Amino acid sequence: MEMKNLSLTIFVCSIFFTSLFGEVMTMKGLNIMPMPAKVIQTEGKFILSDSFQVAVKGNSEERLYHGVTRMLRRLSKRTGLFFPQDAITAKSKIDLANLIITCQRPARLMLHENESYQLKVSSANIELQAETDIGALRGLETLLQLVEADSSGYFLPAVAIEDEPRFPWRGLLIDAGRHFMPVDVIKRNLDGMAMVKMNVLHWHLTEDQGFRVECKTFPKLHELGSDGFYYTHEQIREIIEYAATRGIRIVPEFDIPGHTTSWLVGYPELASAPGPYQISRSWGVHDAVMDPTKDETYQFLEKFFKEMAQLFVDEYIHIGGDENNGKHWKANSDIQTFMKKHDMVDNSTLQSYFNRRVQKILAKYGKKMVGWDEVFHSDLPKDVVIHSWRGKKSLYESAKKEYQGILSNGYYIDLIQSTDYHYLNDPLSEDAPLSEQKQKYILGGEATMWSEFVSAENVDSRIWPRTAAIAERFWSPRHIKDVNDMYRRLEIISFRLEEAGLTHEKNYYMMLRRLTGNTDISALKTLTDIIEPVKIYTRGQQRKYTSYSPLTRVVDAARPDARIARQFRNLVDSLVSNVSNGNGNLESAKNYLTIWKNNHLQLGQTIKQSPVLKEIETLSQDLSNSAAIGLEAFHYLENQQKADSTWIKNSMEVLKNASAPRGQSELMILSAIEKLVKKVGNLEN
Amino acid sequence: MEMKNLSLTIFVCSIFFTSLFGEVMTMKGLNIMPMPAKVIQTEGKFILSDSFQVAVKGNSEERLYHGVTRMLRRLSKRTGLFFPQDAITAKSKIDLANLIITCQRPARLMLHENESYQLKVSSANIELQAETDIGALRGLETLLQLVEADSSGYFLPAVAIEDEPRFPWRGLLIDAGRHFMPVDVIKRNLDGMAMVKMNVLHWHLTEDQGFRVECKTFPKLHELGSDGFYYTHEQIREIIEYAATRGIRIVPEFDIPGHTTSWLVGYPELASAPGPYQISRSWGVHDAVMDPTKDETYQFLEKFFKEMAQLFVDEYIHIGGDENNGKHWKANSDIQTFMKKHDMVDNSTLQSYFNRRVQKILAKYGKKMVGWDEVFHSDLPKDVVIHSWRGKKSLYESAKKEYQGILSNGYYIDLIQSTDYHYLNDPLSEDAPLSEQKQKYILGGEATMWSEFVSAENVDSRIWPRTAAIAERFWSPRHIKDVNDMYRRLEIISFRLEEAGLTHEKNYYMMLRRLTGNTDISALKTLTDIIEPVKIYTRGQQRKYTSYSPLTRVVDAARPDARIARQFRNLVDSLVSNVSNGNGNLESAKNYLTIWKNNHLQLGQTIKQSPVLKEIETLSQDLSNSAAIGLEAFHYLENQQKADSTWIKNSMEVLKNASAPRGQSELMILSAIEKLVKKVGNLEN
Repeated sequence: MEMKNLSLTIFVCSIFFTSLFGEVMTMKGLNIMPMPAKVIQTEGKFILSDSFQVAVKGNSEERLYHGVTRMLRRLSKRTGLFFPQDAITAKSKIDLANLIITCQRPARLMLHENESYQLKVSSANIELQAETDIGALRGLETLLQLVEADSSGYFLPAVAIEDEPRFPWRGLLIDAGRHFMPVDVIKRNLDGMAMVKMNVLHWHLTEDQGFRVECKTFPKLHELGSDGFYYTHEQIREIIEYAATRGIRIVPEFDIPGHTTSWLVGYPELASAPGPYQISRSWGVHDAVMDPTKDETYQFLEKFFKEMAQLFVDEYIHIGGDENNGKHWKANSDIQTFMKKHDMVDNSTLQSYFNRRVQKILAKYGKKMVGWDEVFHSDLPKDVVIHSWRGKKSLYESAKKEYQGILSNGYYIDLIQSTDYHYLNDPLSEDAPLSEQKQKYILGGEATMWSEFVSAENVDSRIWPRTAAIAERFWSPRHIKDVNDMYRRLEIISFRLEEAGLTHEKNYYMMLRRLTGNTDISALKTLTDIIEPVKIYTRGQQRKYTSYSPLTRVVDAARPDARIARQFRNLVDSLVSNVSNGNGNLESAKNYLTIWKNNHLQLGQTIKQSPVLKEIETLSQDLSNSAAIGLEAFHYLENQQKADSTWIKNSMEVLKNASAPRGQSELMILSAIEKLVKKVGNLEN
Repeated sequence: MEMKNLSLTIFVCSIFFTSLFGEVMTMKGLNIMPMPAKVIQTEGKFILSDSFQVAVKGNSEERLYHGVTRMLRRLSKRTGLFFPQDAITAKSKIDLANLIITCQRPARLMLHENESYQLKVSSANIELQAETDIGALRGLETLLQLVEADSSGYFLPAVAIEDEPRFPWRGLLIDAGRHFMPVDVIKRNLDGMAMVKMNVLHWHLTEDQGFRVECKTFPKLHELGSDGFYYTHEQIREIIEYAATRGIRIVPEFDIPGHTTSWLVGYPELASAPGPYQISRSWGVHDAVMDPTKDETYQFLEKFFKEMAQLFVDEYIHIGGDENNGKHWKANSDIQTFMKKHDMVDNSTLQSYFNRRVQKILAKYGKKMVGWDEVFHSDLPKDVVIHSWRGKKSLYESAKKEYQGILSNGYYIDLIQSTDYHYLNDPLSEDAPLSEQKQKYILGGEATMWSEFVSAENVDSRIWPRTAAIAERFWSPRHIKDVNDMYRRLEIISFRLEEAGLTHEKNYYMMLRRLTGNTDISALKTLTDIIEPVKIYTRGQQRKYTSYSPLTRVVDAARPDARIARQFRNLVDSLVSNVSNGNGNLESAKNYLTIWKNNHLQLGQTIKQSPVLKEIETLSQDLSNSAAIGLEAFHYLENQQKADSTWIKNSMEVLKNASAPRGQSELMILSAIEKLVKKVGNLEN
C-alpha cells in the first residue's frame, strides 16, 4: 500500500430541518471509527426495510460471500428485520438488490495488500466498490456503523466515502501465555478487530507461565508446559481461518531465548542452567534462557519451526527476543568459553548471534522474522521487522537503516492508561526525524494486551473500547485527532463492540453481581464507575500474585479510563475555566457529587454482607467525604464566597488521603474536586 | 443404583441468636439445589480463610484432582481469597488440610454408577467421603452451595449431609440441529448441569436443518448438510472429556428415519422420494425420510454407526425415531410393494422393522439403543431405553413390559412454561400404576431444549434457572416439593449458575441494550421483566420463521416464568385471600403498579428511537392502563368500597384487550389485576 497523505474532507452540508414544533436540528456527526480518509455527506437517506437485498458482482470468492452474509445477519439482529435472503453465494440473484457490492479480485492476505474501498449511499441504493474482497469487507464494517434510527425506522444517511488505511500493519497482541485465553476469547476479539479495521493478531503463544501450542514434533512442550491449557493444531487452523475470513493476519510469537521456562520443563537440555524446570507461577523477568552456544538448540529449533511454519500460514513469525537478563549465561562456564572463543564482548552480541541463526531457520521455511527492539542488529537481512516496545527512538533508528518497524510503545493497554494518551501517540508523528522515503519503513503498530492481570472474563474490558481509538490512529489520516469527538464516537463503538459479542460491558455487571453476592449492585456500581485499577506496574509491586490468584475483585471489575469519572472531570474543567454552557453543567456536577456523598450509606451495608468488598470500605467512605467537600466548594462558588484557609487546608488533607489506592483501585474524580477547592480558595471576597 | 425411598430429615436445631440489639434471628434455610436426601444442621460454622487447604485421600484419579482444583478456584473467585495451593495432585501435601476428601474408587461413567456422598462440616474442618470420585464431585457442588457470608467473612454452616440421587438418569437435551450451538455453549451448560448434579447430556445432533457431526466415512453429511456449522471429531472428544471430568455422560442422538433432510442433501440415495434435497430452513414435521426397504440404507447406517460408536464412548446411542409422517413411504410404490410382501400392515410396522435392524447394528458395535416413544415395540431387546415425549402413560406401559424408560413429557423447556409446572411433574408419581419391582424401570428424565427459537445468545435463558428445579425433581426424594422454597432457592442458584459462566442473566441486559440502541434500558426492562414469550407452539404458528430469522427481539429477551410478574401475582393472591402479612405487601403491590402505570411515558420515548421496539408499543400502553386499573382497585379496597358495575365492566374490557400478545409476548400480571377487580366488585358496601 502506498503511503499517501490523504486529507479528510467532510462537507457537512448545512441542512437544517425545521420540525413541527419549530425546533432546529443540525445534521449530527457520523458514528464511524476509524474515521474514513474522505467523507462527503449529502442529502437524503437510504431506508432499510425487510425487502433489503444484496448482490455481489465481479470476481469474488467465499470470503466475500461469507462476509456479506454475516453483515446481513448482523443487520437483521440489530433491527429485528426479517430479510428474505438465505446465505449469499455466487448464485444469489441480483435483480432486486439495493446493496450492490463490486470487487475486482480476491486479496492475498499479506502485508501491503490493498484494503481501500468506496462506499456510496443514496436514497435509492447503496454501492460498495473495492479492488479486493478485503477492501469490500472493510467497507461493510463502515456500512454497518452508518446505520441510524429514528421513529420512522432504520436508515443510512446519504454519504460518499473513499477510504484506505494510513498504515498497513494494524495489530493487537493477545498474550495467551501468562493467562490462557480460550478459542472463544480469540474469536470474539477477532470480530472486534474486524469492526475497527485492524488486520494483524499478534498471538503471544509462549511464556515462562505456559507453552500454549500443541507441538507434534516435541509433544512435551505442550504436555508438560501448559497445565493442559493449549491450542491444538485444529484450533489454530480454525482461528487462522476465522481471522482470514475477516481479512486479519495471524502472526504467532514464540518468545526465545528468554521467557522460555515452560519450554524447559519438558526439554531442560535446551537451557543454559541445569534443570529441572517447573512452569512458573509468578510474574516478571525470569532467569531461564536457552543455551545459544549448543548446536542441539538450533537442531531443536529447526524442527520446531518447520512444524510451526507449516501450521501458521502468514509470512511472518515473531521470535520475541526480549528481556533476557543474561544471568544464566554469565553463570555458565561453557557459554563464557564460547563467547571468548568467538570474540563476543557481551550478552547482546551472543543474542545477536542467536537471532541470526534463528532468522536463517525461518528463512529456510519461507518465513520473515519479527522481533522486539532487542533483536535489532545491522547484520540482519532487510526483511526483518523490528517491533518497538522501548520507544519511537529505536523505531526511527532502524527505519533510518531501512528496516521496517512497528510501534507498541505507547500502546501498552495492560497498563490501564487513558484512551487519549494512546490515541495521540502517533507511530509517525509530524516531527519524526525521517525523510519521506524512510517514513515508509514505519509499518504501523500494535496494542499489547499482556495478561498478568487479566482472565478470559475481563480481558475484553482491558482491550475494548480503548483499542478502537488505537485502531483509528493506525487507519485514519494523521490529522484526525479531535479527542472530544473520539470519545463521543468511542461510546457508540463500544456498544457496537458488545453487539459483536465482546464482553467488556456485560461482564462488568456480572462481576459486580458476584461481588455483592447478587444483592443490589447499584451502590457498588456507583463507586466502581469512577475508580480505576492502579496504573503501570504498581499492581504487581503492591501485592504478591501467582498465576492462579483470583482476578475477580473490585480492581478487576473496575475499568481503564473510567467514563463517568472522565465526564465529571470535563464538567468541572469547563466550570472552573468559566467556559461552561450554563447551569446544566453545574447541576450535573452537583448531582454526581450528591450521589457520591450519599453512596457510602448504602454501600457500607452491601460490604457488611460481602467480605470480598471489605478492602474498598475506606475508599467508599473517602468518596463520600470528598464528594461532600466538592458540594461545599460549589456552595462557595455559587455564593461567590472565598473559602477560608482552614477549610481549604482540611479539604486538601481529606483529598490527599482519599487519593491512596485501596484494594489496588483509586478514585478518579479527586483531581476535579481539588480544582474546585483551589478555585474557591482564589475567589475574590 | 437402588431406588430407596430416602426420607429427608432436616433437624433445624432451634438455635436462637440474640443480637446486641435484642433481635431474635432464626437459622435460615440452606441454599442447596437439588436438596440432599438427608441434612442435619448442627451448631457452629467453618470459617474460610486464605489458609484454606485441601487434601485428597484414598484411591483417586485425575478426575477428582481436577475437580478439587476447580472447586478451589471457584471458591477463590467468589471470595477473593488467595488460597496457597497450586493445582491439586496425588503429590499435594495433606498435613495442613482443613478439607479432607476420601474416595474409595474411580467411578465408571455409566448408568447406575454410585453417586452418593457424605459431607460433614464442623467448626474445625470439612470431611467429604464417597465411594466413587463422581460421588465426591457431587459433594463438592453441595459444599460450594453451602458457602455463606456475613460481616465477619465467608463460612460454611455446620452440617451433616448424606446424599444420593433418586433417579440414575438425570438429563438435559440440547438440540444443536435446528440452531447450531457452538462448543462454548455446550461447555458452559455442562458446568451448569454439574452444579445441579445432572449426569446425562442428550446431544441432539442431526435434524432437517443441520447435520452437526463431522463424519469421516460419509463426509458429504457434514460438508453439505451443515452450512459449515458442525462439531469436528476433536471437538466432540473435547466435549466428551469435559463432560466426563464432571461426571456427565454424553448420549448422542442421530434422529432416523425421519428428521433427516440434512442427511439426504449429500446422500439422496438414502431417501424414500427422489432428490435433490436442500437443507431445510423452516420448522415442523417434514416429509423427508430414509428408505427402510433398501439394503443399501442399512449398509450405510452400519458404516455410519461404526464410526460414531467409536467416537461416542457412552454405552447408549439415541436413534430418535419420532415424527415420521410416512407420506413419502405411501407415495413410493417400491416401498408399498415391500410392505405387502412382508405383511406389513402400516408405517408403524415398517418403522419397527427399521428399528430392529438399526438396533442390531448398534448392538454389533457394543451400543444400547434409546429411542422416542414411537420406537417401542415388544420385539425389541430388553436393554433398549424408551424415551417418552408423549406422556407417562406410554412410559408406564413399557415399564410394565420391563423396558427401561425416561420421561421428557412435562419437561419441554422450549415451551416457556412455569418452573413449578415442570417441578411438580414426577416421573414416578405416587399413584403410578407400577409395582415396586416395575418402578425400577423408570430411570429418570430429561429436560428438552429444542432450538427452533433459541440461539447461542439466549439459549441459556430458556434452560436456566428452570432446569435446576427439574434437576431437583430427578435427584431429591419425591416429597421434596415445596414450591415456595423451591422458588426461594432457585433465585440463589440462578446467581450461582451465572457465576459458573452461564449467560442467562448477563445476556438479558445485553439484549435490552441492543434493543434500545444502548440508551437507557430501565423502562424497557420494567416491561420485559413482567412479560413472557407466547407459550407452547404459538410462536411458530403466529409468524413465519426461517432458521436465519433474527432471534433478538423483545420476545427473545423476555424470559420464561418472569420472576417479578410471579412475585406480583403472589402478592396479590395473599392480599385477595386476606392472608397478607399486613401493609408491607400492600405497599409493595402498589409500588409495582405505580411504576408500571408511569412506565409507558418513558418507554414510549425509547420506542421512538428504536424501531425494533415498535411492535410492543401498544403492549407497553396496555401495561400502563392495566396498572392504573390495579391502583383504582386498591383504592376501592382500602376504602372498603364496592366498585360499581360500569367500572368493573370497563376494567375487564381493558384487561381483556391487554391480554392479547404483541410482538409475540404477553403481560403476565393481568390475572392478578383481574383478581383485584373481581374482589372489589364483590365487596359489601
